[in-house]
Amino acid sequence: MKKLQQISVIGTGLLGASVTLAILRAIPSVKTVAFSHRPSTRQKAARLQIAHNIVNDIHKCVEDADIVILATPIQTFAATFKEIANSLKDGCIVTDVGSTKVLPHRWAAKCLGKNVHYVGSHPIAGSEKRGVEFARDDLFSSAQCILTKTPRTNPEALRTMRKFWSAIGCSVTIMTPARHDRIMAQVSHLPHVAAAALVNATDKETINFAGKGFIDTSRIASGPDNIWSDILVTNSPNIVRGVDRLIKELTVLKNAVKDGDDNKVAKLLTKARAKRTALIKHKIKKKELL
Amino acid sequence: MKKLQQISVIGTGLLGASVTLAILRAIPSVKTVAFSHRPSTRQKAARLQIAHNIVNDIHKCVEDADIVILATPIQTFAATFKEIANSLKDGCIVTDVGSTKVLPHRWAAKCLGKNVHYVGSHPIAGSEKRGVEFARDDLFSSAQCILTKTPRTNPEALRTMRKFWSAIGCSVTIMTPARHDRIMAQVSHLPHVAAAALVNATDKETINFAGKGFIDTSRIASGPDNIWSDILVTNSPNIVRGVDRLIKELTVLKNAVKDGDDNKVAKLLTKARAKRTALIKHKIKKKELL
Repeated sequence: MKKLQQISVIGTGLLGASVTLAILRAIPSVKTVAFSHRPSTRQKAARLQIAHNIVNDIHKCVEDADIVILATPIQTFAATFKEIANSLKDGCIVTDVGSTKVLPHRWAAKCLGKNVHYVGSHPIAGSEKRGVEFARDDLFSSAQCILTKTPRTNPEALRTMRKFWSAIGCSVTIMTPARHDRIMAQVSHLPHVAAAALVNATDKETINFAGKGFIDTSRIASGPDNIWSDILVTNSPNIVRGVDRLIKELTVLKNAVKDGDDNKVAKLLTKARAKRTALIKHKIKKKELL
Repeated sequence: MKKLQQISVIGTGLLGASVTLAILRAIPSVKTVAFSHRPSTRQKAARLQIAHNIVNDIHKCVEDADIVILATPIQTFAATFKEIANSLKDGCIVTDVGSTKVLPHRWAAKCLGKNVHYVGSHPIAGSEKRGVEFARDDLFSSAQCILTKTPRTNPEALRTMRKFWSAIGCSVTIMTPARHDRIMAQVSHLPHVAAAALVNATDKETINFAGKGFIDTSRIASGPDNIWSDILVTNSPNIVRGVDRLIKELTVLKNAVKDGDDNKVAKLLTKARAKRTALIKHKIKKKELL
């Protein structure tokens, strides 16, 4: 980490700007440079002083960087890799903060040069809010960050990325992109699908009678729709399998209700309750519920 | 309301005890009497002074009451109506705080005498916590309360119940039991089913990677399993239709993801987001988000 002199971030939304703010706070010796495609976002980012330099040229942004972090929609990665490939210095580490990892690894292998190292990063932090104005320097404090590696991942680049995310407050886990995408489909993408479907299944006349339960269960359906469609579409096989599993569980519970089978219904609800209680206990123990 | 001298509550869990506490605070002139089947619950209720009298005989509890409120599981109502029918004084109003209303109205018509009046009440308040120790005198402040009536409902009894729930802080709406059960299936029972199914669809290896989204979406799955199985089973036709509607929405979204149809996926998520935003605005306007 001592050798890191510059980290450049492409995209200054909630996540990208929170990364630079966290660096400014936790690793003040590192120079931060940020780029955003939109002039209005660059102006906001400059006004909020989210990095040392806010530049309007993506090549200028990355040319001296030791680490380049993509914080743009996942489906822009392949084009961005191609665009910056020739501007990166030898040994540069390229990473991202996207919520799916299989496709980014594939695109990096195809579009980046042999002189740079790609490592996938997924800091599990965010908000249903979006935009640079909601960026916080403590967004990653106590957050989990999953790093993804394949047999071709450079071990030193992986070590550097682990140290980097730890330095800004994350608890780091390393796994393959395939495992990452499978796990995230279950614990993150599927809840989003369920929340959206639940809201869409409710008609206008009745929704206003919603209480706290509905409000909480549907909260993530208020998340940024374009970012989420990007996530779902880039994790398609796992989403399809996950929805099928959810439909299966719904059908089991529905049939027990239909049959008036109190014991079966109670058993299914007890199972869910016990699993969630165990989860909350685990989170409290790991101090991940802040 | 001036004539009310005694309100008796059967069942001193979170809801029943919160009702008596709210009466003690908001209508101190009314005598509160409470009964619980379990001696240990009666002892706790007495220690916490949740009512003027905690009695160990259900007939003693109700015999002088102007209003009797059942705060026990819905499936016990028919038996309780039969048990107390001969102990109620003429003109007594019987109500409950159950989350489904079609069956309670049917049971009341069958099991209570002609000398008393049944009105269904559903104060939309609660918690994933349970038990007398979590009771609060402000549980109903700013809560909605739905009262249910049929053509045979006594208009004066209905007026009295409206005044009562308003006095302890509720905003009251009146509708038929059928409409109530249909609406509640959508905005309350279905979210519970979805949350439980979501947790049950997640395997042990992956659940610990859950972030804030999963925790919120599944919160209500930590609710009391026996109370919820009681609710689901007593609203069976609406639950079955609701789950079918949810499965339909899930399938539409799944197919769009499977087809890699970005526009369709984004459109479905945008629809959900807009509906939820409108809901939150409505709740803020009505001051129901406290």
